[in-house]
Amino acid sequence: MAKKKIVTKRQFKRHKKVGKAPGTITYMGHRDATETKVTIIEYTDSFNKVHYPGDIEQIAAHKDTPTTSWVNIVGLSDVSFIEKVGSHFGLNPLILEDIVNTQQRPKIDEYEDYIFGAFKMLYVNENSELVSEHVAMVLMKNCVLVFQELDDDVFNGVRERISAKSGRIRTRDSDYLFFALLDSIIDNYFVVLENVSHKIEVLEEEVYENPNQEVAHRIQLLKKEVLKIRQWIYPVKELVGRLIDSESALISKDTKLFLRDALDHSYEINESLQIYREMAMSLMEMYMSNMSNKMNEVMKVLTIMASIFIPLTFIAGIYGMNFDHMPELHWEHGYYLVWGIMITLFIIMLIYFKKKHWL
Amino acid sequence: MAKKKIVTKRQFKRHKKVGKAPGTITYMGHRDATETKVTIIEYTDSFNKVHYPGDIEQIAAHKDTPTTSWVNIVGLSDVSFIEKVGSHFGLNPLILEDIVNTQQRPKIDEYEDYIFGAFKMLYVNENSELVSEHVAMVLMKNCVLVFQELDDDVFNGVRERISAKSGRIRTRDSDYLFFALLDSIIDNYFVVLENVSHKIEVLEEEVYENPNQEVAHRIQLLKKEVLKIRQWIYPVKELVGRLIDSESALISKDTKLFLRDALDHSYEINESLQIYREMAMSLMEMYMSNMSNKMNEVMKVLTIMASIFIPLTFIAGIYGMNFDHMPELHWEHGYYLVWGIMITLFIIMLIYFKKKHWL
Amino acid sequence: MAKKKIVTKRQFKRHKKVGKAPGTITYMGHRDATETKVTIIEYTDSFNKVHYPGDIEQIAAHKDTPTTSWVNIVGLSDVSFIEKVGSHFGLNPLILEDIVNTQQRPKIDEYEDYIFGAFKMLYVNENSELVSEHVAMVLMKNCVLVFQELDDDVFNGVRERISAKSGRIRTRDSDYLFFALLDSIIDNYFVVLENVSHKIEVLEEEVYENPNQEVAHRIQLLKKEVLKIRQWIYPVKELVGRLIDSESALISKDTKLFLRDALDHSYEINESLQIYREMAMSLMEMYMSNMSNKMNEVMKVLTIMASIFIPLTFIAGIYGMNFDHMPELHWEHGYYLVWGIMITLFIIMLIYFKKKHWL
Amino acid sequence: MAKKKIVTKRQFKRHKKVGKAPGTITYMGHRDATETKVTIIEYTDSFNKVHYPGDIEQIAAHKDTPTTSWVNIVGLSDVSFIEKVGSHFGLNPLILEDIVNTQQRPKIDEYEDYIFGAFKMLYVNENSELVSEHVAMVLMKNCVLVFQELDDDVFNGVRERISAKSGRIRTRDSDYLFFALLDSIIDNYFVVLENVSHKIEVLEEEVYENPNQEVAHRIQLLKKEVLKIRQWIYPVKELVGRLIDSESALISKDTKLFLRDALDHSYEINESLQIYREMAMSLMEMYMSNMSNKMNEVMKVLTIMASIFIPLTFIAGIYGMNFDHMPELHWEHGYYLVWGIMITLFIIMLIYFKKKHWL
Amino acid sequence: MAKKKIVTKRQFKRHKKVGKAPGTITYMGHRDATETKVTIIEYTDSFNKVHYPGDIEQIAAHKDTPTTSWVNIVGLSDVSFIEKVGSHFGLNPLILEDIVNTQQRPKIDEYEDYIFGAFKMLYVNENSELVSEHVAMVLMKNCVLVFQELDDDVFNGVRERISAKSGRIRTRDSDYLFFALLDSIIDNYFVVLENVSHKIEVLEEEVYENPNQEVAHRIQLLKKEVLKIRQWIYPVKELVGRLIDSESALISKDTKLFLRDALDHSYEINESLQIYREMAMSLMEMYMSNMSNKMNEVMKVLTIMASIFIPLTFIAGIYGMNFDHMPELHWEHGYYLVWGIMITLFIIMLIYFKKKHWL
Repeated sequence: MAKKKIVTKRQFKRHKKVGKAPGTITYMGHRDATETKVTIIEYTDSFNKVHYPGDIEQIAAHKDTPTTSWVNIVGLSDVSFIEKVGSHFGLNPLILEDIVNTQQRPKIDEYEDYIFGAFKMLYVNENSELVSEHVAMVLMKNCVLVFQELDDDVFNGVRERISAKSGRIRTRDSDYLFFALLDSIIDNYFVVLENVSHKIEVLEEEVYENPNQEVAHRIQLLKKEVLKIRQWIYPVKELVGRLIDSESALISKDTKLFLRDALDHSYEINESLQIYREMAMSLMEMYMSNMSNKMNEVMKVLTIMASIFIPLTFIAGIYGMNFDHMPELHWEHGYYLVWGIMITLFIIMLIYFKKKHWL
Repeated sequence: MAKKKIVTKRQFKRHKKVGKAPGTITYMGHRDATETKVTIIEYTDSFNKVHYPGDIEQIAAHKDTPTTSWVNIVGLSDVSFIEKVGSHFGLNPLILEDIVNTQQRPKIDEYEDYIFGAFKMLYVNENSELVSEHVAMVLMKNCVLVFQELDDDVFNGVRERISAKSGRIRTRDSDYLFFALLDSIIDNYFVVLENVSHKIEVLEEEVYENPNQEVAHRIQLLKKEVLKIRQWIYPVKELVGRLIDSESALISKDTKLFLRDALDHSYEINESLQIYREMAMSLMEMYMSNMSNKMNEVMKVLTIMASIFIPLTFIAGIYGMNFDHMPELHWEHGYYLVWGIMITLFIIMLIYFKKKHWL
Repeated sequence: MAKKKIVTKRQFKRHKKVGKAPGTITYMGHRDATETKVTIIEYTDSFNKVHYPGDIEQIAAHKDTPTTSWVNIVGLSDVSFIEKVGSHFGLNPLILEDIVNTQQRPKIDEYEDYIFGAFKMLYVNENSELVSEHVAMVLMKNCVLVFQELDDDVFNGVRERISAKSGRIRTRDSDYLFFALLDSIIDNYFVVLENVSHKIEVLEEEVYENPNQEVAHRIQLLKKEVLKIRQWIYPVKELVGRLIDSESALISKDTKLFLRDALDHSYEINESLQIYREMAMSLMEMYMSNMSNKMNEVMKVLTIMASIFIPLTFIAGIYGMNFDHMPELHWEHGYYLVWGIMITLFIIMLIYFKKKHWL
Repeated sequence: MAKKKIVTKRQFKRHKKVGKAPGTITYMGHRDATETKVTIIEYTDSFNKVHYPGDIEQIAAHKDTPTTSWVNIVGLSDVSFIEKVGSHFGLNPLILEDIVNTQQRPKIDEYEDYIFGAFKMLYVNENSELVSEHVAMVLMKNCVLVFQELDDDVFNGVRERISAKSGRIRTRDSDYLFFALLDSIIDNYFVVLENVSHKIEVLEEEVYENPNQEVAHRIQLLKKEVLKIRQWIYPVKELVGRLIDSESALISKDTKLFLRDALDHSYEINESLQIYREMAMSLMEMYMSNMSNKMNEVMKVLTIMASIFIPLTFIAGIYGMNFDHMPELHWEHGYYLVWGIMITLFIIMLIYFKKKHWL
Repeated sequence: MAKKKIVTKRQFKRHKKVGKAPGTITYMGHRDATETKVTIIEYTDSFNKVHYPGDIEQIAAHKDTPTTSWVNIVGLSDVSFIEKVGSHFGLNPLILEDIVNTQQRPKIDEYEDYIFGAFKMLYVNENSELVSEHVAMVLMKNCVLVFQELDDDVFNGVRERISAKSGRIRTRDSDYLFFALLDSIIDNYFVVLENVSHKIEVLEEEVYENPNQEVAHRIQLLKKEVLKIRQWIYPVKELVGRLIDSESALISKDTKLFLRDALDHSYEINESLQIYREMAMSLMEMYMSNMSNKMNEVMKVLTIMASIFIPLTFIAGIYGMNFDHMPELHWEHGYYLVWGIMITLFIIMLIYFKKKHWL
């Protein structure tokens, strides 16, 4: 269900853009979803503060402060606001297009003064449906701009570490913040994979216990979900690799050590995904083999019933004939003899089927 | 249907050429399809004009004007006309061959003074059939030559942007025009993919509701269509990549930024196509599993009916025998007793099948 | 059929050679097939002549003439003659081995004074069987040596162009002749693919109309044929690529432009072959799904017949019993009542199967 | 079973970490599994001694002795202890994280003064279940630190060689010790593969003798196990390759010769694993084909029984009719004639089925 | 059968070695198979002689003679003897380990004074079983050491060429001898492939004529055999390639020309193997489709018999009822009428099944 909706939406949205000039900044998400909400977390080693800026100037002011600022913008439907932010922070229009294009595939673009990244934030919501949310991040000298589609996100851990001054985050620069956010996104992929793994286990059991068309359908949905996840996650390992090889002055050698860890996780995720994919394919195979088993069982019941009673009915039919001269009919124990023959036949058939392990 | 016709035509056409000298300029499309029609859109930042040139000299005149000209030639069957255009614009005969060869696979060739590209324009016509049309484009210093097979195209967006002066197009050179046209072609691939995605969804539903041979056939046609589309689209990402890496003076660094965006789209299209391909394969698998299900259901009905009534018929047969001495026949309630036994048996069988979840 | 024979022959031939010294010049084809026949086509821009040389010296004389000579040798069983040609033209013994080895896989070897190439000429004969013929070509400064297994070939187009002075061929050197021959070979691959495509279409129809074991067998033969063709055609694209990258003085820059076209065709052929391969695999899948369909249909007929008549027969059986006390038997309209019940039951069953869409 | 547990645990553990700061040293195994146990084997060419150090200083003392020390730490749940070891030996916190992360995928990280490696130790326990254990190793100038999850390991051979002074190990430096331990791990992969191979053979036999749902289930479990093993083993060959290419002064040229041998083994393991994977897939295929066979057999029994007795019953039915005028009923030998006809029919059916090879 | 034995042995052997020091020289074959037998063939252009040396010194003497010597050692179980040979010829212990390890995967190792190669000699024995035999070869300046597991080999052709002075072998150095031996090994792979191809053809026929479980089993064995052969043969093409690229002074430029030919053959073998693999997979597919066909046939017989006779039996049942008032029973021609109806029904059913092509 959830899956289907996503596909449809995606296709529909892209349609709106076909024929427009390249670089046109068109919002591709649920236009009426959320109104734009801006939060700025500013911190240094010794202090941290959360701002709720009222206008664009208050936001732009954080560009050049020596403190580290995390400008978090939720809701991408107000395109003109995004454009204003872009021009105040000096962003290329092509980037603005990517920010509001919620179908953007994961990418990293390096510019002279900033590094742009677009990713898919994946999480499982309270209905245990998979949610995919577009997130765009810009790393600048003293701040990180984060653009999110929806209010929910996977960054609470980072927020807590900043306010609680736990871990290294408060002692480091914006590049570490950028990494910490990216790391949160990647870490959450593990939760999503867990969800997939759980679904596989549930389906595995159902395939054994009660294989029916609905189970087959859910296996197909799972396969689609894995395909989708792979499309969103697969490019990440290459992008992180590119950040590590980057010569930009924005990323310190120290942060690169941490990025190498994130790279490691990306590889692990891809390998696990590959395994889940093969497991999902095995599920279908298993389903087919169980269907075959069921059919076999059905056929055995039919064969046993028919093979036993059709010959017996034939014998009864013989002595139901009305010929004038049928000596057996007049034997004193003819009737009991026929019963004897029929019971013997019955037992022989039972033994035969027993031997064939059909009983 | 549509699919099959394409394959046949293609094969047939190539046949005509086998044995001819390489470099022979042979039109490989529907020779009688369209007559040649030339339109020239000339523009600078400050003006734009559409010409309908009467002869070849009027066309050639646009080669050296400082304005940007889009020479659009529709209909490739008049080979001598194409040759004349080629010689006036100084094109290599090998290129001319590629221009009229409507089976040409996508390619980019760089020459000193111009860059030649051949692509497949894909769109869905009013009967929602997939149409593939050969288009060849030559980028020159001040003009772009476009050769199309048919009158329909995907360039209306570009035409509108030029005439309405919307977007950047009027302020830029011929390389941007070349990019804009290529971008239109690529953008339309999304529409084609959408169409594929829609077909998959429709088939998915039918596979569940009414799997029959006709559905299986349409799944196969879809698989073929995806194969074809892949053949046409797959090379594009490499070609765009080559344009970006090109050292030709014809493509400005600025335009390359836009090309990088187009490259991104090409990757996305290829990934989606890959997913649709796997979905199409899943459809067939699903179809087979549903067929199995149906068979199972059929077998269950047969088995239940036969297993219940064959033994009962046997009992009836017993008391239809004509033995002289069958005491039960003379019991006062013999008949009702037999009914009792048969109904009991019937109920036992029902319970048995209920337990097996066959009912 | 045709396919099988080829495989067997091939294997058998290789056997003969195992254990012999490497470089031993052993003919691996049909030893008695054709006797050696030599034709020389000599031409310059202004004249052309066909020679039928009587002895080896007359052949060797063409090595150093300034005219371009195409020395065409048909029939490879006279190994000593091939060796004489080799020594007169200064060919390495390893090449001679490859010339007479009709199982040689496609290859290009560059030597200082000449370039050696071995290819598979593929064509469809009058019985529309696929024929694969080994052809070896040596490009020298002023001549091209061509060694063929059989009299049939795909070079008639080139012969005509030389004698009719059509196309560029008469104005160019031996390297262009070499290319023209190679191009003929590659162009004919399209005809072979067409044949494959045609077979697929025929089988597609038969799979729908009358799927039987013979059709399944032909699908398998087709799959084998595609595998074989791929083995013969696949290396060509790399070999042509190597010629283009070659630094040999024998190939002019101009000819390389044409080779690039041939390379393009090789890619196209490989892509098409890939598609045909997947289509052939789909055919088998389709066959299985149609078999399933048929089975389903058979089962439905059985189930309907049995489900309707077994209960009715049971009712008839009831009233065929001979109990003394069966009141229904003595009712005046008992018989008609039973008919009524049976017809009612019959109709109910029909409605039930109608609802299940089994009718 | 064993398989499932592993998957579940793994997923659960990762969960605990999501949201924490990167570089947080969190133990991801069975926290209460083993308490930390440290053993140090110290040796030179001329002496060897086993230490059981009481405190961290006694351990750290081995860092700078000229003798070679193998510091073996079992039990990773006491994170603060691991951290102390880390700081005494000067290890990067990121490494400490990898040491206690028992889900770490295989990796090699080179630092200036040491080389860090994480591997999966695989072995088959007494219940012939596959056990995977995380092991981390640090190669330093004069010592090798080994961190293990559990008390069991595959290093007994190395211990014996040190104490018995057999092989080269006592005459060489810490890099050889590091290699010897790694070699033990890799060698044990062969034992695991053997176990897989044995399972395949057992399943192969069962598939032929008694294919049932439980066998199908075990085939699936085997496929999963192979997938898991591949995930753990696959990266090793690349890691060993990286050690060989390393320019670190810690690894002597001589030891690299041995590593090349280990690399060879890694390749062999991967190839075998690939074969086992394909065999496991063949098992499922075989299972399906045997199921089909069984079904065929069941159907044949049904068809033979029904085809023989249904027509005979029909004949008996005919002469059970009660028409007033049925001349055959009054023939003297009518009854025997009917028996004759029925027996003839019976024999004809038998011959027919014999001819069809159904009997 | 043969296959299974190989797998088991292999696994068992490796077990013996696990836990031993790397570089331990452990024989991994049939320890009691053959006793060691040494033959030396010494030759120059003008003479050749076969020696049967009595002790190790007589063998070692051939190391430094200017003649070319082929030291052939059969039987690898006497490890100490191999070690003595090793030390006299100055071989690295790691190589000795590889020489006696009969499970060694194919490899080439270059040392300063010699080149070591290990290969699998494959041949089909008199029972047409596939035999795989480990062979290790060392190329030195004036001699080639060959270590074989068993007495049988594929080198008779080389021996004959040396003694008969046929081919180039007597006029060339040890590198050509090394090549000639390797070429013999590779050439014999063709014989093995032939055997595979023959098996495929036989199975193909059986699949059509008599598909049963035993055929399915043999298809699986064939698939395994192809997997094994691939594992043994696959690395060869890379190894030969490495010899060609080698800069060792031991291999002359002239011999490299011949190696290039061997490389060509390796490629051909790999391609053929790939094709056989796909054919083997097709066999299984074909088997399943034929099983389906058989099932269909069985079901048709059942359906036809049941559909025809169940309704007829029902009619007979009707007139077997004992109602007092059944007018038809008293019609004069009632009985014949019923026969008429039944025959009509019978014919209608026949026509129906004829139309459905079930008859």
